[in-house]
Amino acid sequence: MTVHLVGAGPGDPGLITVRGLDLVRRCDALVYDNLVSPELVAEAPDDALLLPRDGLKQSEVNELIVSLARTGLDVVRLKGGDPYVFGRGGEEVLALVAAGLPYDVVPGVSSIASVPAAAGIPVTHRGISDRVTVVAGSSAAGSVLDYASLAGSGGTIVVFMGLGRAGEVASGLVDAGLPESTPAAAISHGTLPEQTVVVSTLARLGEAAETLARPALLVIGEVVSLARAARLEGAAARVA
Amino acid sequence: MTVHLVGAGPGDPGLITVRGLDLVRRCDALVYDNLVSPELVAEAPDDALLLPRDGLKQSEVNELIVSLARTGLDVVRLKGGDPYVFGRGGEEVLALVAAGLPYDVVPGVSSIASVPAAAGIPVTHRGISDRVTVVAGSSAAGSVLDYASLAGSGGTIVVFMGLGRAGEVASGLVDAGLPESTPAAAISHGTLPEQTVVVSTLARLGEAAETLARPALLVIGEVVSLARAARLEGAAARVA
Repeated sequence: MTVHLVGAGPGDPGLITVRGLDLVRRCDALVYDNLVSPELVAEAPDDALLLPRDGLKQSEVNELIVSLARTGLDVVRLKGGDPYVFGRGGEEVLALVAAGLPYDVVPGVSSIASVPAAAGIPVTHRGISDRVTVVAGSSAAGSVLDYASLAGSGGTIVVFMGLGRAGEVASGLVDAGLPESTPAAAISHGTLPEQTVVVSTLARLGEAAETLARPALLVIGEVVSLARAARLEGAAARVA
Repeated sequence: MTVHLVGAGPGDPGLITVRGLDLVRRCDALVYDNLVSPELVAEAPDDALLLPRDGLKQSEVNELIVSLARTGLDVVRLKGGDPYVFGRGGEEVLALVAAGLPYDVVPGVSSIASVPAAAGIPVTHRGISDRVTVVAGSSAAGSVLDYASLAGSGGTIVVFMGLGRAGEVASGLVDAGLPESTPAAAISHGTLPEQTVVVSTLARLGEAAETLARPALLVIGEVVSLARAARLEGAAARVA
């Protein structure tokens, strides 16, 4: 009777960890996020309870995993990316701690570096970027990003859940001092067959991102220019 | 004949990806980093060439993988963590591109979130931190970190390869405006059986880190205080 918080990785089912997949294959109940690959859900045992998280509030998810564990089941809570990178895994852990239930956290491949990599972009590169700043573009509170500190951060900026605000993010950064010519990319469905990449600049990021579908990641900084060096090509990539 | 740049993950061999392990098991030649788990190296086929990277300059590693691929071998270049997070994977890719050789990049679980997670620390947590800034504490150029922008970044700061400079980093951040009471942790050998965690504050981080062994990660920010809530305990953890 343990709840395993498992990161499923960025989308491609081959990018779950060996331990994560092993736990999925042995679980009694699987509570899985919307964005988790169906191939991974299908790896659960035939008699496992399969429970989509979709439609549940975070507090209801917390209650669900606590209830399942209390019945004595081994539960895998399968989350997109990594449980602790904008995954609200900490809230689920605190609920389990409060209930006195055993848990562990199996990290996953976060989108931070893997989705840019799938578009040919290294988030760090010697002589180009030795810092990465990771933020969420949309927050439940609808808060405004601190563009001044972001623009002054140097290095690479990675924005999760920023597609709907790509234009606002780009102009916020330009107003705070980043050049309009700063390379920027938007990557939709990163690591999946339907991946679509737009490589552009801050000046045109908003417009370029409009045609993309969620989920998407924004990457801003000089490293984006390496996407061309890495022969980013094919129907899935275009330059705006 | 392809060179696969594969991230081995943070240390625990169970945290390699399913695809990464599959490629290791089928390779003709394995060029592996010092910090990669021996268990993963042992997964290569019996007749595979096993080539430690240790002692080679980066330019020599680039030449090695190019030479191996030119002889027609399928090469796995197994790197600690993720190839593109302070992994110099981009340099290896550019060498392969220049040589006209096929390659792919299989991301790994970076230490960014997984090593803090192993110490009970979520790098993001609703209401506490919605930003993560990742830097390298030591650079070949011996450059000074930009403490002003780091201290103003808000959220969580993750420092790779910062153990030898933990005291300098802490006082740099305090001089730049972060409170001495800011929670800070140093995690040595994260995710491995010999993992050691010291939870402290910026005021005492330098002293606390002195007894730890490389490799280590520093984590600075309010999320570190959640390590206690997550029942960080046992011989491997102490509070300085």
